[in-house]
Amino acid sequence: MKSVQELGERKIIEIILKQLEKMPHMPVPFGDDVSAIEFDKGKLGVFKTDMLVGKTDIPPKMSLWQAARKAVVMNISDLAAKGVKTTALLTAVGVPRDLNQENIEQIGKGLNAGAREYGAYVLGGDTSEASDIIISCAAFGITRKDRLMLRSGARAGDIVAVTGFFGNSSAGLKILVQGLSAPLKLRKTLAESVLMPHARLKEGLSLAQTGAVTASIDSSDGLAWSLHEIARASQVGFMIDRLPIGHEARQFANVNNLDPTELSLYGGEEYELMVTVKQAFWEKVSRNVSLVRIGRVTRKKNLVLKMGKRELPIEPRGWEHFKTSLQKA
Amino acid sequence: MKSVQELGERKIIEIILKQLEKMPHMPVPFGDDVSAIEFDKGKLGVFKTDMLVGKTDIPPKMSLWQAARKAVVMNISDLAAKGVKTTALLTAVGVPRDLNQENIEQIGKGLNAGAREYGAYVLGGDTSEASDIIISCAAFGITRKDRLMLRSGARAGDIVAVTGFFGNSSAGLKILVQGLSAPLKLRKTLAESVLMPHARLKEGLSLAQTGAVTASIDSSDGLAWSLHEIARASQVGFMIDRLPIGHEARQFANVNNLDPTELSLYGGEEYELMVTVKQAFWEKVSRNVSLVRIGRVTRKKNLVLKMGKRELPIEPRGWEHFKTSLQKA
Repeated sequence: MKSVQELGERKIIEIILKQLEKMPHMPVPFGDDVSAIEFDKGKLGVFKTDMLVGKTDIPPKMSLWQAARKAVVMNISDLAAKGVKTTALLTAVGVPRDLNQENIEQIGKGLNAGAREYGAYVLGGDTSEASDIIISCAAFGITRKDRLMLRSGARAGDIVAVTGFFGNSSAGLKILVQGLSAPLKLRKTLAESVLMPHARLKEGLSLAQTGAVTASIDSSDGLAWSLHEIARASQVGFMIDRLPIGHEARQFANVNNLDPTELSLYGGEEYELMVTVKQAFWEKVSRNVSLVRIGRVTRKKNLVLKMGKRELPIEPRGWEHFKTSLQKA
Repeated sequence: MKSVQELGERKIIEIILKQLEKMPHMPVPFGDDVSAIEFDKGKLGVFKTDMLVGKTDIPPKMSLWQAARKAVVMNISDLAAKGVKTTALLTAVGVPRDLNQENIEQIGKGLNAGAREYGAYVLGGDTSEASDIIISCAAFGITRKDRLMLRSGARAGDIVAVTGFFGNSSAGLKILVQGLSAPLKLRKTLAESVLMPHARLKEGLSLAQTGAVTASIDSSDGLAWSLHEIARASQVGFMIDRLPIGHEARQFANVNNLDPTELSLYGGEEYELMVTVKQAFWEKVSRNVSLVRIGRVTRKKNLVLKMGKRELPIEPRGWEHFKTSLQKA
């Protein structure tokens, strides 16, 4: 019998999903970033719930205000990746006994700040006692069925693009968790990318409007994992010929003698969108939304990183609970 | 600065809610059992999220299957109390490292069983590593705005009624947690009431259809607390002249020399509905739904239990996290 640590987060989700009877006519299949129900012809209620756990999701130096804000932002990001604006959120907070009234106020203020930044509201909450701080959020939004961007529509020939650059959060985690060093200004920028993540809501909504996006995902588990998820859901492969390495991540890699490819490809806690776009619409789409083209969808189902003349396999790894930990090593 | 233990669960929720900006035109006020958004004229999306935490919500002898089922049922019960059928649920599961694959399967099966019992489906889930087992569920349903039963509509003269009898769960918790004893058959029945709670969905839906219910709540925090919540939200008082003590709870009280009033009034983990009904409609309503009349709503804002000629105050206490614990004493 395998332990949960051997199984890892994705396998655990898979095992749980396998026990569930499927609702007939599910507008979004099991395992996508969000779930949905059709409540009117062509109109969907879109839902997501995800929890932030102190031990694994709150790095040192992240305040409770920032943690609560992040718990909201990570749910808003999942809806944004599907092209859906979050209207409202609920929260369930697990509170350890050593917190005090001011800590609770900070959690409340952080939840509110995260929601209001994206035009959403937190409508209510519940609390329980817990051994570790837990901030679970549920996010809700409404969309038209034909606007929804799933993971499953990528086709050979589509262009792969992202809304920003990668590696800064991995670098930030190395600073906050492992104590790696960098010049002050750089250190601040990189730490900030972990402590104050931003959801690409505006971009997600604009992309959904174009009708040209064939698949979309948020990159919170890292660029490599996100590519693998789309590849699996769409039954395709990728040829990535331009790795979108963040400027600061590259500087940090130089200072610390690290591999910038590793930092940007196999990180996590990044909330960029990764999308595939029909080639014919690429020009129109990239005029409206600031995107970085990184490669192409291929019929062949392997994932390849092309660096000059070298071709390297993109491995299915990155940020994963149970296998990675935020505990200081 | 007060610790969370001094504050207690309700004060913590109050502090969090105080930090939140109010969404304009909220169909359900802060602090009711559920939240809602109006997505079409007169049509509401109704939401709830609540988490079950191992340390405080899973008593000894409750299996993981039962715990997962309970996490679903307690959310369905909150929607049922508002007259809303749960269509779909999501879950976020916090998994400690000592669980194995079979444990995860049991959690998945329990989630599914709880949902299917009430015609709902679990649409998806997420997991994180956690120190203690956490099963957070979010429930969604749809209703007409004029069908929603809030906490705030009780008026002097209304009849107070419940969907069943109280005290069995308190007795069951005393058996499971404190090791109190009782004859085998009685012990089984009482333990079962804790391990396999049932949501009063059918009753909630029927009650909402009558249009005669002025306020409603589920009694998961105990009968006394539920009365106090309605009293506060509706700005009324109660005269309770018939305490609905469960037959088995009374037997258990006899055997263990306990006060059956205490057991039934100040318990918790019970999922009966407590409603107030317009007097003129009482006969019609009680013909359609099996209800136990327990008293009357009063203009005077105190809560009184009438026992023969004696009048006792009903205190605002019962099951509350941080103040009560399931840890074996």
